[in-house]
Amino acid sequence: MSNRSPHIAILATGTELLSGEINDTNTRQVAELLAGHGLVVRESVCVADREDDITRTLDRLAAENRIVIITGGLGPTEDDLTARAAAKACGRPLILNDEALEQIRARFRQIGRTMHPGNEKQALLPHKVKVLANQNGTAPGFRLRLHEADLYFLPGVPSEMKAMVASAVIPEVIQQFPDLQPSQERRLQVFALSEPRVAELLSKADLPQKVETGFGVTFPFVIIKLRATGEEADEQLDLAELRVRQSLGDFIVANHNETFAGNVGRLLRIKEKRVALAESCTGGLLSKLLTDPPGASAYLERTVVSYANSAKHQALGVPLDLIETYGAVSKECAMAMATGIRTKAGTEIGLAITGIAGPDGGTTEKPVGTVFIALVGPGFEHARRYHFSGDRERVRTFAAHMALDWLRRYLGRLPFPEEDRSP
Amino acid sequence: MSNRSPHIAILATGTELLSGEINDTNTRQVAELLAGHGLVVRESVCVADREDDITRTLDRLAAENRIVIITGGLGPTEDDLTARAAAKACGRPLILNDEALEQIRARFRQIGRTMHPGNEKQALLPHKVKVLANQNGTAPGFRLRLHEADLYFLPGVPSEMKAMVASAVIPEVIQQFPDLQPSQERRLQVFALSEPRVAELLSKADLPQKVETGFGVTFPFVIIKLRATGEEADEQLDLAELRVRQSLGDFIVANHNETFAGNVGRLLRIKEKRVALAESCTGGLLSKLLTDPPGASAYLERTVVSYANSAKHQALGVPLDLIETYGAVSKECAMAMATGIRTKAGTEIGLAITGIAGPDGGTTEKPVGTVFIALVGPGFEHARRYHFSGDRERVRTFAAHMALDWLRRYLGRLPFPEEDRSP
Repeated sequence: MSNRSPHIAILATGTELLSGEINDTNTRQVAELLAGHGLVVRESVCVADREDDITRTLDRLAAENRIVIITGGLGPTEDDLTARAAAKACGRPLILNDEALEQIRARFRQIGRTMHPGNEKQALLPHKVKVLANQNGTAPGFRLRLHEADLYFLPGVPSEMKAMVASAVIPEVIQQFPDLQPSQERRLQVFALSEPRVAELLSKADLPQKVETGFGVTFPFVIIKLRATGEEADEQLDLAELRVRQSLGDFIVANHNETFAGNVGRLLRIKEKRVALAESCTGGLLSKLLTDPPGASAYLERTVVSYANSAKHQALGVPLDLIETYGAVSKECAMAMATGIRTKAGTEIGLAITGIAGPDGGTTEKPVGTVFIALVGPGFEHARRYHFSGDRERVRTFAAHMALDWLRRYLGRLPFPEEDRSP
Repeated sequence: MSNRSPHIAILATGTELLSGEINDTNTRQVAELLAGHGLVVRESVCVADREDDITRTLDRLAAENRIVIITGGLGPTEDDLTARAAAKACGRPLILNDEALEQIRARFRQIGRTMHPGNEKQALLPHKVKVLANQNGTAPGFRLRLHEADLYFLPGVPSEMKAMVASAVIPEVIQQFPDLQPSQERRLQVFALSEPRVAELLSKADLPQKVETGFGVTFPFVIIKLRATGEEADEQLDLAELRVRQSLGDFIVANHNETFAGNVGRLLRIKEKRVALAESCTGGLLSKLLTDPPGASAYLERTVVSYANSAKHQALGVPLDLIETYGAVSKECAMAMATGIRTKAGTEIGLAITGIAGPDGGTTEKPVGTVFIALVGPGFEHARRYHFSGDRERVRTFAAHMALDWLRRYLGRLPFPEEDRSP
């Protein structure tokens, strides 16, 4: 991250942001646009549509930052209070701004509609502001200076707000701070290693010092983030990525331009292999994942979700006495499902999952979370038992991804790890 | 909203929240849980994983509020700094908390995994805190007092955080503030009507004046929110819900205690019907949805995802010359798939989807988004063509939900609407 970035804060106003109704998504969008230019946000705040709270927060953020970007509260209705709060914060009167009024009128002419008298309120701005044009809506923005900070007031409608950050805010800021060093980021997706284990392995990797690393969990993955700033950022990140790949090896399943399923699909296409799936507890999720990328018809012949034993027998050829002897949730049944679907579909690879996703159906011997996976190919077969923790959704998600990982490892001739570590 | 609520602030920590990587969704979830008990959030803040910023913000929020809820930064890695910042803010040392350590150990025993030494860091807490149990993960939370405020520190993992707000935060807060007027909310999930159409129908419904209404879209559903405050809230909401149901009728597929798939599953169980599915473009998503609720083995015999024509022929009995004549994406093929899976599986109901999810494979006659659905039951058959708009994921999601809706309508003897309106 650049240390040369001025202190920047974002304020989003709106009662609906604090009542649990909706997520604030504007802040992320502003931050993302700024980050692309090396501008780092230090703090973001949401306050409700209450004049006092907005005034107090504007005053504080202006005192503590160099740039403050405010979204929302510039509309025509009564709960749009931002301009009034801004006037109060900087001790100036609200006046009808002719330039803003003309912009609003022009906008209505442009879209061929009559201006509602309520829209005139949107031209009531603090005295002596710079009006910021809004090409996509009726509410003009404005800029004013308070303490040592530039405050940019933008409408809350995401499309309008985003366009104005790009056209009005960023050009001014980068002109004022010519030494900004845009930072670059890479992300690597890790599967089947826990977050502490990833951190431990990376702590031993000799990563370039100028590269910042971070972690996050997006179940069922651990995400590694690498960030570098300055002219050599690309080379530094190349080196860092190489070192990370040396440390974590085949546990990295995708980078930020890829998806796990997309990579497995690509492998299947490149190697011209076809697969058939047999699922039980995952109910079709593995098949759904494998068909998320376009072009899946090149490699998936069929999937059978054999929920009932009759389906396992008829559609997969699993002998009923095998199910009776070992149970439908067993290594033997998983292997018979994989072999069966492979034979029925005539594909090179058969892949099967059977297990107990819960919350019911567990026993002492086979508790909820017990899952068997089996993969059969020409001269190859592998099956094993797992115990995945968590609720029904987590067990199903982790099991389906683990089966997808088996496919990746089979296709890439990679070893099958002994442990299963959720993030 | 109640005016009797104490001042409450939420602080979410995480560099990824300010770099444009992800939206902060925890704040909304905390606010939503609090709102259900009449607790109003006054301000929410995000700061990055920097100790000074967290410390400074904790100090300010504690000085300005009565309750502060902090999420994130309790994990085992180096960028998890919240406990250290909390210790600094209240001028106490960090100590290894025995109770917290025992909770972490117990958690690892419970999930049958070895504790990583890095996890010990999660028991390093400020001196003299109350430890808050985390039933769903390794990071214990804690509560401490600073200035006149109670500060609740919770992990950032949404499922863990939510459970702890409900179990540890809310009971304490409502005990301290017995005069709160809880507002109550009900949500109704609408499928296959657009948001403007829902708004139009509701504007004609005679809803009680004291009930606030709101709308939102959670694809593929439109969500109707009804909210009321005070002692008569329940009766008011009963009446409002009745009126909404009168206006929107069978387009309401679930309330906030239910899921769409769960309701369809319950209908299947009550009516003791069994179903078999045949999917093509949705790749297993319909089957995954129908097996999301526990107990799906009572009603789902099997699913065949017949991606290849060979699979349609062998596993569903679709004649190859039918596919040649009409194409695999046709009403005739959908009907043959539904009939075929029903016969093979020996279930009362056969349900099939075939279509073009894109981005490739579209033609002038059958563009991307063309989907056929067919349902066959005893003395019943229905098939029709749809055109769903959007990208691959939206087409697949909407198609699978539409098929689920067919099942609901068939089971409930409801009419099949002529139009398909995405939200």
